[in-house]
Amino acid sequence: MQLIDGNAIAASIITELKSQVDALPGRRPCLALVRVGEDPASVSYVKKKEKTAADIGIESRIILPPVTISQAALETLIDDLNADPTVDGILVQSPLPKPLNELAVFRRIAAHKDVDGFHTLNLGKIAQEDDTGFVACTPAGVMELLARSGTDLNGKHVVVLGRSLIVGKPVALLALQKKAGANGTVTICHSGTTDLPAITRLADVLIAAIGRPEFVKSHMVKPGCVIIDVGINRVPDATKKTGYKLVGDVDFAGVSPLVSKITPVPGGVGPMTVCMLMQNTLKARRLSAR
Amino acid sequence: MQLIDGNAIAASIITELKSQVDALPGRRPCLALVRVGEDPASVSYVKKKEKTAADIGIESRIILPPVTISQAALETLIDDLNADPTVDGILVQSPLPKPLNELAVFRRIAAHKDVDGFHTLNLGKIAQEDDTGFVACTPAGVMELLARSGTDLNGKHVVVLGRSLIVGKPVALLALQKKAGANGTVTICHSGTTDLPAITRLADVLIAAIGRPEFVKSHMVKPGCVIIDVGINRVPDATKKTGYKLVGDVDFAGVSPLVSKITPVPGGVGPMTVCMLMQNTLKARRLSAR
Repeated sequence: MQLIDGNAIAASIITELKSQVDALPGRRPCLALVRVGEDPASVSYVKKKEKTAADIGIESRIILPPVTISQAALETLIDDLNADPTVDGILVQSPLPKPLNELAVFRRIAAHKDVDGFHTLNLGKIAQEDDTGFVACTPAGVMELLARSGTDLNGKHVVVLGRSLIVGKPVALLALQKKAGANGTVTICHSGTTDLPAITRLADVLIAAIGRPEFVKSHMVKPGCVIIDVGINRVPDATKKTGYKLVGDVDFAGVSPLVSKITPVPGGVGPMTVCMLMQNTLKARRLSAR
Repeated sequence: MQLIDGNAIAASIITELKSQVDALPGRRPCLALVRVGEDPASVSYVKKKEKTAADIGIESRIILPPVTISQAALETLIDDLNADPTVDGILVQSPLPKPLNELAVFRRIAAHKDVDGFHTLNLGKIAQEDDTGFVACTPAGVMELLARSGTDLNGKHVVVLGRSLIVGKPVALLALQKKAGANGTVTICHSGTTDLPAITRLADVLIAAIGRPEFVKSHMVKPGCVIIDVGINRVPDATKKTGYKLVGDVDFAGVSPLVSKITPVPGGVGPMTVCMLMQNTLKARRLSAR
């Protein structure tokens, strides 16, 4: 069994991105990070993004509207960033405090600055195999982990567990693309699937993104398969100072002896998402320079 | 075995659409049909669309640019139709004669008038389960045939054979939607699939859209399954006056005795596409009236 080391792969990508940013003519890429309020998890995520950007040489512009900002004012703020030629990418940290309408805010971000890849146009471009858009960071990270661990999907049966808009559907469409590394046969299963274990056992590559702790057990996998575990679930653990531990959607202890490759949680898909955000920001900078 | 009669279902839909159009306040829906040149198949398709529109009470505006029209002039023509408040839907008949760039012309059509459902935004909306867009006519017709033949996809395994942008991918995304009638487990397979018969035999519902005459044979289907045959292929037939006959992607004679329901070719999916175009045009009219 080979562990797919997300931390190591992410570190290589950061090094590569840094040298690409160093070689860029003109101004450095600029990522606007908008964080509303002081949710502790959001504070920590934005800090991590800011630090990774700095490591790579991407400028970050931190914008911290008060928790009391109105929907209209937040949308005007987005409009201004959309219009600002010195801003390449815009990220609004989720979740937004109530009563703000998160979907309306995300949709306000111009497609060509949507480095989170949530815009309808960017999702449609994945289906169209049009490389000019932005792929959402988690599915992009999954594809990078597969590629960099030497897992070619060509001729393989890829089973995606979960049909969410930000992971399941885009990763299924990416795995299906008629291009090198992809070209998989793809099954998408979910909470409504009849006899789920029979389906997941078909997988040469299983991508678990269902958000249920340790849901995938050993009887649900085919020996020798490759597993990418997208889940990051907190479960109570009295032995931890925090009172919880992080586990994936896969029962790692039970499943990992059976597989050929697997991502751990934490340290698998997680570290990739910030990298992919930076890669998208660099791409946005290149597109804007055209 | 039950034959799913596309002609009869299409006729019911046309009757329904006519009464809906009759009940509309204000002006009638208007569909602009753009046909460049005199390709005989295109002439016949546009005539069929014009006639169906007339039957329903939808106004059609036929625009016949000469085969020599430039790309720029054709795009200006589209821009004018986009801006015209009396035009609800725009259809450019495919194929366009060379050297016109068909993709660029299709992309010029405003998303809110794209009754063919080819726009990136409209494809993205299917993935997002956002009902404000337009679904391409063939996948929309497939879903109608399933619904009106009493085939609920909930808990079923739907196998889509073919991953084209205008049929395979949108129909897969529709079958996967978390809504009544859909909610299927979906597999998309294609020319690069390993052991295709093993995959197609998993199907409770098989949607064949691969464009290869009589490709699906009896050993590739599970007894009792439902088959929607999207293929319309011409094969030589000396006994016909035309010299050819139309066959689907399914070997109807061999497969039909095994299944619970199947669409014939012709007379299955084919008659549905024009209906769905009219339904989209009515929807465009309603959206524009808001």
